[in-house]
Amino acid sequence: MKIDINSDMGEGFGVYQLCDDAALMKRVSSANIACGFHAGDPAIMTRMVRLAKAHGVGIGAHPGFPDRQGFGRKALPFSADEICQQVIYQLGALRAIAQVEGTRVAHVSFHAAMGTMINRDAALASQVMQAIARIDPMLIIFSQPDTLIERAAAAAGLPAMTLFLADRAYDANGGLVPRGVAGAVITGEQAVRARVRQFLQHGTVTTLEGELLPIRARSILIHSDTPGSVELAGVVRSEIDANGDCIAPAADVLAQ
Amino acid sequence: MKIDINSDMGEGFGVYQLCDDAALMKRVSSANIACGFHAGDPAIMTRMVRLAKAHGVGIGAHPGFPDRQGFGRKALPFSADEICQQVIYQLGALRAIAQVEGTRVAHVSFHAAMGTMINRDAALASQVMQAIARIDPMLIIFSQPDTLIERAAAAAGLPAMTLFLADRAYDANGGLVPRGVAGAVITGEQAVRARVRQFLQHGTVTTLEGELLPIRARSILIHSDTPGSVELAGVVRSEIDANGDCIAPAADVLAQ
Amino acid sequence: MKIDINSDMGEGFGVYQLCDDAALMKRVSSANIACGFHAGDPAIMTRMVRLAKAHGVGIGAHPGFPDRQGFGRKALPFSADEICQQVIYQLGALRAIAQVEGTRVAHVSFHAAMGTMINRDAALASQVMQAIARIDPMLIIFSQPDTLIERAAAAAGLPAMTLFLADRAYDANGGLVPRGVAGAVITGEQAVRARVRQFLQHGTVTTLEGELLPIRARSILIHSDTPGSVELAGVVRSEIDANGDCIAPAADVLAQ
Amino acid sequence: MKIDINSDMGEGFGVYQLCDDAALMKRVSSANIACGFHAGDPAIMTRMVRLAKAHGVGIGAHPGFPDRQGFGRKALPFSADEICQQVIYQLGALRAIAQVEGTRVAHVSFHAAMGTMINRDAALASQVMQAIARIDPMLIIFSQPDTLIERAAAAAGLPAMTLFLADRAYDANGGLVPRGVAGAVITGEQAVRARVRQFLQHGTVTTLEGELLPIRARSILIHSDTPGSVELAGVVRSEIDANGDCIAPAADVLAQ
Repeated sequence: MKIDINSDMGEGFGVYQLCDDAALMKRVSSANIACGFHAGDPAIMTRMVRLAKAHGVGIGAHPGFPDRQGFGRKALPFSADEICQQVIYQLGALRAIAQVEGTRVAHVSFHAAMGTMINRDAALASQVMQAIARIDPMLIIFSQPDTLIERAAAAAGLPAMTLFLADRAYDANGGLVPRGVAGAVITGEQAVRARVRQFLQHGTVTTLEGELLPIRARSILIHSDTPGSVELAGVVRSEIDANGDCIAPAADVLAQ
Repeated sequence: MKIDINSDMGEGFGVYQLCDDAALMKRVSSANIACGFHAGDPAIMTRMVRLAKAHGVGIGAHPGFPDRQGFGRKALPFSADEICQQVIYQLGALRAIAQVEGTRVAHVSFHAAMGTMINRDAALASQVMQAIARIDPMLIIFSQPDTLIERAAAAAGLPAMTLFLADRAYDANGGLVPRGVAGAVITGEQAVRARVRQFLQHGTVTTLEGELLPIRARSILIHSDTPGSVELAGVVRSEIDANGDCIAPAADVLAQ
Repeated sequence: MKIDINSDMGEGFGVYQLCDDAALMKRVSSANIACGFHAGDPAIMTRMVRLAKAHGVGIGAHPGFPDRQGFGRKALPFSADEICQQVIYQLGALRAIAQVEGTRVAHVSFHAAMGTMINRDAALASQVMQAIARIDPMLIIFSQPDTLIERAAAAAGLPAMTLFLADRAYDANGGLVPRGVAGAVITGEQAVRARVRQFLQHGTVTTLEGELLPIRARSILIHSDTPGSVELAGVVRSEIDANGDCIAPAADVLAQ
Repeated sequence: MKIDINSDMGEGFGVYQLCDDAALMKRVSSANIACGFHAGDPAIMTRMVRLAKAHGVGIGAHPGFPDRQGFGRKALPFSADEICQQVIYQLGALRAIAQVEGTRVAHVSFHAAMGTMINRDAALASQVMQAIARIDPMLIIFSQPDTLIERAAAAAGLPAMTLFLADRAYDANGGLVPRGVAGAVITGEQAVRARVRQFLQHGTVTTLEGELLPIRARSILIHSDTPGSVELAGVVRSEIDANGDCIAPAADVLAQ
């Protein structure tokens, strides 16, 4: 089975860097590249596109709110039209950079509060997906399974890529346990390794309450801003290899 | 003869507006739309694209330096790579917005210090034009005649649109008299009207020194941030009509 | 009786201007100067301070949220600590500029969403007022009468200056009718003039419902970004003169 | 002998951090705190002021150009008036934060390009120092010895604190060897340790050309954004202790 590993990339700004993008790019198969609103700038985006191309990594737009100080994590009171325009602006900017570099944008993964707001509003999700589909109907939408975003993507004729978060606890409904709750974030290489193995072998995750929950997902998300993210990506890779699966960008996974 | 009237548009930000874009859009045939760096934002860009489409106005990208406070007028020490990446980013953003609105970007007109820097550096001009040509080889580059930008556009296979500035004095070499010099800016409706008429009928301008100078130009630039720019555009329109010429977007002028 | 006329000033940015600050400064007695977050910058602030000093106008800090695109009008999810720190930062910046110019900041008037949020949260209002009192216990807090801000200022030992808005409709509780509602904004010179006269002669306003409501206020606010604000300030001045009252900065009004 | 150790602090932004400020604050005696233009924000500034106060560290303003993307390192074409206003604005902002926290700003250290430009222009240096002196004539100006800044500070009646850079090569004139030149940056704990020891014992540095050069300095600067800056500060501390000298904030050093 082909499976994707994705991570948010190029989320620095000026002298600031959030992770070792160059090292991480060698270990993922899809890169969600910040597009200059919550993080990133044209120079960083170009560097990320070149790195991704050099390593055969799928290139994705990672649009966020125009809020560097809050890193796109604040729920800002933008209108649906404004959010949709912000997505299209950022997607277009990255597409042009990719085109000049002789490659293309393959997917879209929404950042933080922008993703949360789109995922809570069916009308907004539909508006955004239809706009994206007008840009390129082959663009793959990254989302957790069974979300408004996944449904809106399908309705707009866009392929969707479902995510598994190896370092986050799930509740009985398949939702993520909020970060504030004890046990919400899985730390420790062994724990993450075990969860990846269980996901690969059985397609399940054990919820915070201890139940087995089926997880329909084709891509494993690595949080790049977690300390040790590069090593964590290595752990995920080795588990995929050990399980006899094949790491591939989202487009290849879906083409399977 | 077909002739274009172009103006910089959408150069507001948030609550700020520089001119009455909606009124001016009814009087120009090409709109150079600010792309969110020196001015503009995704919402303003979308509004400009819709207005331009509604009025049959050619849509152009008007990229500038990322410097709202200086309005893109400061010569900032960016590298050639950075400037090129900034152009591509902004062009791509506007292209995506236009695509969602069911139209397309037809031309590129560089803003202020970014244009000045590109026009002073043949290697940079060549790099920028080649990158633009990779995005869309039909993109028309706006420039004054006999400039590095015009030559670099030609070398990259891009069509060029030459400009006449009806409200600025020219020197004996066909250059613009710097704004500081007395007489550099032509004010007064009658003076501008006379210059437009002379340009249309004879293809010449009278220099500051009083010499007749041939002007090879196919588009008349209206400075939108000049007080009275909307009325000035009306004056230019009426002169073109009176001369029996036809106002048309840049692409139509070049297709003639 | 002494009465103050105040207006928000210096709310431009770079090339952008919201009103004719120089003209308006001749007609108000207190200037609420934007401090570089929602609008303004060090150069504009310095110009405003010089103008205010030259015209004997009281200088006030007009702090807002760090959101130029939204002009400080969006309710942003900042914590109480963050809001308090933003107020102090901006107040300190203006105080230093005033000090270099040989004058001082006399009052504080909160801008838009920042003011609304402070006015809705007694703990936040108290925290902000106590911090301001540590900077200078003579700083006058501008607010509408009978608000959390007025009470928190009093509790912190800060003098308060109460406002009357001549161009906004009041409801039966003395609150402002929201801008969306028909009749919320009073336009027309005659209507404003009549309201100012009624306020000066009887200390009342006629509510949207038609009731007479006492208004306890010592300063009349002119919205500088309303078209015609300079003329409106002239109307208010002439009514005050005609009524035999005396226009004076907030500190003089309170010292009466 | 008392000697100061200073470092630039609080140069993060939002989620970004440049160094472990909390750890470094335990090892320096003067903190140059970024003031929200090239880096920092009101929340970070408040945290730095609290840390400095808790550890008895002298608090300094570290003003820079309003250029987060370039981290204040670009020579931006601001006028002398604008630069002076930017200094005063930032200084005032930090002073107010310090005042609310029950402490005060003791010194000013200019950041990167702003410092370089002030140091190259005697008229600008004089204008800036006179403005600072109007804010507080006790403010200590940090600078390298024998510079325009030091002279302008003296002329304005401001005390100056001279710096030794333990990790940068000096040329025969006492200037810093530009970063591009081989050997310009001293890396390696032993090399830095030896230079600190030589400076403490003999008041000299060995230039890049191998000559002994007297260094008149009372504060050792640690570059906080160098990897290992916290450890380097520890090295400097231990050398000062070993030499029998006493680490103290700038004001204490000058009061000696």
